[in-house]
Amino acid sequence: MELLENRIKEEGLVLPGGVLKVDSFLNHQVDAKLMMEMGKEFARLFADKGIQRILTIEASGISMALTTALVLNVPFVFARKKASVLMSEPAYVEDVYSFTKQETAHITVLKKFLPAGEKVLIIDDFLANGEAALGMARIVEKAGSTVAGIGIAIEKAFQKGHSRLIEAGYHLEALASIASLEDGKVTFTKK
Amino acid sequence: MELLENRIKEEGLVLPGGVLKVDSFLNHQVDAKLMMEMGKEFARLFADKGIQRILTIEASGISMALTTALVLNVPFVFARKKASVLMSEPAYVEDVYSFTKQETAHITVLKKFLPAGEKVLIIDDFLANGEAALGMARIVEKAGSTVAGIGIAIEKAFQKGHSRLIEAGYHLEALASIASLEDGKVTFTKK
Repeated sequence: MELLENRIKEEGLVLPGGVLKVDSFLNHQVDAKLMMEMGKEFARLFADKGIQRILTIEASGISMALTTALVLNVPFVFARKKASVLMSEPAYVEDVYSFTKQETAHITVLKKFLPAGEKVLIIDDFLANGEAALGMARIVEKAGSTVAGIGIAIEKAFQKGHSRLIEAGYHLEALASIASLEDGKVTFTKK
Repeated sequence: MELLENRIKEEGLVLPGGVLKVDSFLNHQVDAKLMMEMGKEFARLFADKGIQRILTIEASGISMALTTALVLNVPFVFARKKASVLMSEPAYVEDVYSFTKQETAHITVLKKFLPAGEKVLIIDDFLANGEAALGMARIVEKAGSTVAGIGIAIEKAFQKGHSRLIEAGYHLEALASIASLEDGKVTFTKK
């Protein structure tokens, strides 16, 4: 998606250790119009999948899950990284390790918000090692539903998440695919 | 806002201790169309305030801040409840105590995303004791900007947040105002 790639080129900051910061438009300050365009693009890419529900994870996935849900006219659910005292009902919980934050989150979705037999689209802002996407996929499958697709805003194709998801048989679409962050420079995957 | 009040009547669950659960449409499973209508309503209520930026707090404020930002055509920023290793730049940090979660969050906004001299709209999903809204207001004022308004989806008018914000001189608008949750029943404030 050219709009997103251009924004990454203009404003993305490459930090040591293969980290890309996009906090000026995606995960701290947020460009709502860009999120709407990304939602339209996710909706277009998965238009023929019969999506009935979207699952994402707080907090940075919410903006793009919301706009995708708006276009596809389906509900979305965001997994909590930490169960609240209000979540006393039966829940699906999966451990997800974040290499960036170096900690394990217990992502939690109440069972009543993931009915069985649905086609679910998983949305997230970043794909690096695939931990979050695979954790959400396990939750969808435990619920007796099908992962109809995984939509990622920015994938770091040089890390193992991309191949892990493809090898597991998932339909993966990334709006921007980064081949390398070497020497502090963003190089996109050739199409 | 009748649409939101009706939804609370139909799906809201009252728990002991004056807690209202709206996790079927607002803060776990989310109704994107309702969020868009709420964004339009916030934009209408603050239309003459010259809003230049929206500040909210992760995670439940994001959906409604996004739709409001879309309608007002301004950027929004969501405060982090926990500083990430990626947030190594100068930041505003305020302690915010949550009575529901019984813990203090250090809400954090990078200084570069709150320029001085702007008119900022604060948006949040709930107003109970006013801790989060007042913490965000302190951040806006530390940044040298003005709190042009505080927009809340659901206020519990029987708790002290409402009067604390009014007494501090802020322009407060709540889309649904709850007078009482006594006997497990939702009673809205009379208009």
